[in-house]
Amino acid sequence: MPHGYNGKILHVNLTTGELTIEEPEEKFYRKYMGGSAMGVYYLLKEMPAGVDPLGPDNILALCLSVMTGTPISGQSRMTAVAKSPLTGGIGDSQCGGFFPAEMKFAGFDGIIVKGRAEKPVYLWIHDGRAELRDAGHLWGRVTGEVEATLREELGDDKIEVLQVGPAGEKGVRFAAIINKSNRANGRTGMGAVMGSKNLKAVVVRGTHKPTVADKAALSELARWGATHFPESDVAGLGKYGTAETTGAQQRAGGLPTYNFTSGVFDRWEAIDGTTMYDTILRGADQGKQDRYGRDTCYGCTIRCKRVVEIKEGPYQVDPKYGGPEYETTSTFGNYCGVSDLPAIAKANEICNKYGMDTISCGATIAWAMECFEEELITVEDTGGIELRYGNAEAMVKMTEMIAKREGFGDVLAEGSARAAAKIGRGTDEYLITSKNQETPAHMPHTKRTLAVIYAVNPFGADHQSHEHDPSYRFYPERMAQLGLHDPQPKLALNAEMVRYAMITQHLYSAMDSINVCQFVFGSAWQLYGPDQLVKAAQAVTGWNVSLYELMQVGERRLNMLRAFNAREGIGREADTLPKKFFDRPLKGGKTDGYVLDRDEWRRAVDTYYAMCGWDVETGYPTRPKLEALGIGWVADELGLA
Amino acid sequence: MPHGYNGKILHVNLTTGELTIEEPEEKFYRKYMGGSAMGVYYLLKEMPAGVDPLGPDNILALCLSVMTGTPISGQSRMTAVAKSPLTGGIGDSQCGGFFPAEMKFAGFDGIIVKGRAEKPVYLWIHDGRAELRDAGHLWGRVTGEVEATLREELGDDKIEVLQVGPAGEKGVRFAAIINKSNRANGRTGMGAVMGSKNLKAVVVRGTHKPTVADKAALSELARWGATHFPESDVAGLGKYGTAETTGAQQRAGGLPTYNFTSGVFDRWEAIDGTTMYDTILRGADQGKQDRYGRDTCYGCTIRCKRVVEIKEGPYQVDPKYGGPEYETTSTFGNYCGVSDLPAIAKANEICNKYGMDTISCGATIAWAMECFEEELITVEDTGGIELRYGNAEAMVKMTEMIAKREGFGDVLAEGSARAAAKIGRGTDEYLITSKNQETPAHMPHTKRTLAVIYAVNPFGADHQSHEHDPSYRFYPERMAQLGLHDPQPKLALNAEMVRYAMITQHLYSAMDSINVCQFVFGSAWQLYGPDQLVKAAQAVTGWNVSLYELMQVGERRLNMLRAFNAREGIGREADTLPKKFFDRPLKGGKTDGYVLDRDEWRRAVDTYYAMCGWDVETGYPTRPKLEALGIGWVADELGLA
Repeated sequence: MPHGYNGKILHVNLTTGELTIEEPEEKFYRKYMGGSAMGVYYLLKEMPAGVDPLGPDNILALCLSVMTGTPISGQSRMTAVAKSPLTGGIGDSQCGGFFPAEMKFAGFDGIIVKGRAEKPVYLWIHDGRAELRDAGHLWGRVTGEVEATLREELGDDKIEVLQVGPAGEKGVRFAAIINKSNRANGRTGMGAVMGSKNLKAVVVRGTHKPTVADKAALSELARWGATHFPESDVAGLGKYGTAETTGAQQRAGGLPTYNFTSGVFDRWEAIDGTTMYDTILRGADQGKQDRYGRDTCYGCTIRCKRVVEIKEGPYQVDPKYGGPEYETTSTFGNYCGVSDLPAIAKANEICNKYGMDTISCGATIAWAMECFEEELITVEDTGGIELRYGNAEAMVKMTEMIAKREGFGDVLAEGSARAAAKIGRGTDEYLITSKNQETPAHMPHTKRTLAVIYAVNPFGADHQSHEHDPSYRFYPERMAQLGLHDPQPKLALNAEMVRYAMITQHLYSAMDSINVCQFVFGSAWQLYGPDQLVKAAQAVTGWNVSLYELMQVGERRLNMLRAFNAREGIGREADTLPKKFFDRPLKGGKTDGYVLDRDEWRRAVDTYYAMCGWDVETGYPTRPKLEALGIGWVADELGLA
Repeated sequence: MPHGYNGKILHVNLTTGELTIEEPEEKFYRKYMGGSAMGVYYLLKEMPAGVDPLGPDNILALCLSVMTGTPISGQSRMTAVAKSPLTGGIGDSQCGGFFPAEMKFAGFDGIIVKGRAEKPVYLWIHDGRAELRDAGHLWGRVTGEVEATLREELGDDKIEVLQVGPAGEKGVRFAAIINKSNRANGRTGMGAVMGSKNLKAVVVRGTHKPTVADKAALSELARWGATHFPESDVAGLGKYGTAETTGAQQRAGGLPTYNFTSGVFDRWEAIDGTTMYDTILRGADQGKQDRYGRDTCYGCTIRCKRVVEIKEGPYQVDPKYGGPEYETTSTFGNYCGVSDLPAIAKANEICNKYGMDTISCGATIAWAMECFEEELITVEDTGGIELRYGNAEAMVKMTEMIAKREGFGDVLAEGSARAAAKIGRGTDEYLITSKNQETPAHMPHTKRTLAVIYAVNPFGADHQSHEHDPSYRFYPERMAQLGLHDPQPKLALNAEMVRYAMITQHLYSAMDSINVCQFVFGSAWQLYGPDQLVKAAQAVTGWNVSLYELMQVGERRLNMLRAFNAREGIGREADTLPKKFFDRPLKGGKTDGYVLDRDEWRRAVDTYYAMCGWDVETGYPTRPKLEALGIGWVADELGLA
């Protein structure tokens, strides 16, 4: 069995045009695995504190992992890391699709981009060769057009294109990086960073399939996955997409509605996953949506991605821009009180076309709607648009205006927190942001550990940074592998639940470094459990990787992200939750009257820092903790005593 | 595949004669696994602080694990835990042999002994039944005789006998618990505790083989072990016993000589493992020592145990008392400057016959010898014995006098630290104790991490609580499984080496809970690595145990031991090293002039506490750390804020 791993990192200096190739030693890969840990490694090593996120000194790291491109579900993931123009701290975002695998085939595990090109360029990487090319003709154009142009220009239909749309070019602070015109590194504004560098696209093509140390073992795991998939908890997710969860959230009173004013939306059925499947999924008119309406990522059996097509009516949608996820139907839907599924699909199309994060975009509009309802924002601000809950047309219009930074859209393009600061008038009371990033569509009112993780997560409110808490009760055997044996009653936020949050956060952090999909691998309802993640990593690398090692990778990466923030002076004071969650009881449904308890939350956060081995006063990682993770160099970098 | 585990714990109240059986829920076993963690669990739950270690309120826990008695090498281990009469804090000691497996076959995973019998008794356990029987006729008799009497009395040649000898009866503070007359729970005075309870013996016999969830997987691992054993690093250990290491220690200047005055002993060859093999091992006279001179534990392929036989000369030795380990040849040998192997074998026989820890006994005599050489102890103290280095006769005589608490032996039976306190005259300058327990035969001068572990280990100086540091450099693949990727130069005691010490300590702590032998399982030169420990645990229990879980068990147990001490008020101030190590440079050999640096050591210990998540001022575990290990109840027990 072959053993070990070697790979290449491409360093790109856009200011000088210099391209250099690094071949890290094997233990670098084993210690960081790839993805987010790899990215923040370069940021900490090669970038000083205090740089302008939209200036040339920011570094954008695009990182794969040791597993990318191998024949197993869930491995085609790429993590983008840079200083975030939205949060001011670390930015971190994952995408799926075919780009990650193709980038691996093209010969690189990471692309570290520095500087700023004088004029728009794109990076063309093919079979180990890399070059910067002029992108003047692509600038200002939407993603689908750019894809088509590049395919033609490069004469290869199999290229994969990662790009920023016009929103990224214009520095929309929650601009996304888009690939295949329908997948996004959505959160934390990575598209704005890429745009600020005048890097329009990264195009990859390659034929070097990565070696797999133990092909038989990996095949066996893949076979097991294929066999168990139909009865697994992800089968429904595959068929109905992530919006399948809408009903469960509604029943629990955990469907964020009217900008988190309520946990129920009376018209939820109009926008859920089954309705999407039955109506606008491509092929639904012929009952062939399983064939035409479900897309996949490289090598993945689940096929959770949506392809919607609307040929008639006010909101026509081109299938090449994919379809909305649950986060998207929620933020443009229930957040805004909108139950018009085609309108939501249209907003989704605009986001993929112009390159924006649907969560921040939809949530920012919902915040503006609440302010409008409260008469803190008026038609004078909006240029006449009645930005009311339920106004689908206004929602779609505002999405487009943000993408183009037109009118009031230019204000909202800064994200809701900056917009509130600009507008004033008490609009900040209605923000649902942590570290300036808008909260995704899972409510800490029903899943208490989110109250901790939303606040402490280094790059702002995020729903994919730990396992949501009901899982602790429902998946005892997978939980036990993580040493979790004592599920607590519903809604508890005691020490054991904080521990659960931290431990599953470390696992998810490892998954964001070894770069695997959280629908395929996880600690609960996912297709594969932690033991199988270990098996997959072993099979691919030939290393005798243990779960203990992987959990260290996860904790290591989390500490590196926090250390990055600490270097920027961002610590505990930034680990907040929206005031609304504490001050305004929810209305209606099962969670009617629910509100978070500030003291309970503060105690939980204190416990969390202490359990993490961080300074409870500052929320910064400590030297002993960093050294205990084998990254004393980070403590040196921070100048810690 | 059957799944899960259930077992029984026998609670024995010697004061009332009451025997009760507990059947813990499955998650108890998964969380604590057995052994030391199981034992200290009952001590923390059922015993208050401040009890007299030799009084009826002490609890003696004799614990197996989920793996005991299954068909794999290294699993027949039993851990004894009680408050230690030697250290005043937690006592903890492991034994091998056949008793552990037989106890499992008899139906129990743990025996929790409370109170004190009015008259000597023994506990007879057979196939799930337990009874207390009169032991008046056994009291005062040596181990070999007691074994023979019980076999006859119970009419069963297959019983296994665990007992205290006369030393335990008389409260020698380093008295051992002995089984098969030749295996010991040697350290921390567990025999004195058992003796103080008037519990002469525990006799077990049973026919219930434990279930193995995945027999094929366990067999495969056993086969792998048998196949790889001949070329493994433990093959020599099997053939020549632990004293095989004498030469390597000598060459490194790490063979503690003349009470740690030197790291070399010029006559080392006279007492090493090959000399023992060639001369006094049973059958050596016919060249059949591999057949007659090597003993084993239940189900173990290594056969490291020695059987020596000396039929002539001043030191005749009965083979039923086994033979000396490296620790024994060192403490009675090089520590005392004695190179007379038969004399050492005789001292070993006395220890097994009377029930004493050879390390503390030999080291206490060596300390007295240095004091004698320094004229702080004289023939007036010793009753005319010339207690000089190299005086084999005096060494043997003193061993016997300690066992019987005769004359000066009665003083030394208190252990060297208490003897020094009693004698005064500056004799404490020459102590080589940590927490009153004498240092084993591995030198922190050559293996720096021992300087930390000797000091911080909850039950005093111990050489089997972590992986000694050269291993980090020599076994990179096994180390990598623990997330250890950065071996440091020889003699370094920087943060990375402290981390290494802590992580391997957690592994060893897990092994002392799942109760496996450290020659069979480990992180370096052992037959099986951490991955295989996981496989073995999985195969036996059917649980999908991960290394992450096992490492938590280890850290959990270590924190429970420290918590026990904290409850007794024993913390950082007790985490000391012998003054000699700092103040008196070694003489001769490769380590000539070596001395430990007090500042470097203090920094390392500070780092260790901080990495452990303990209070650096007090050395106590903190509530968040205990809660992070899922044992918040321990923090409650300690009354921690």
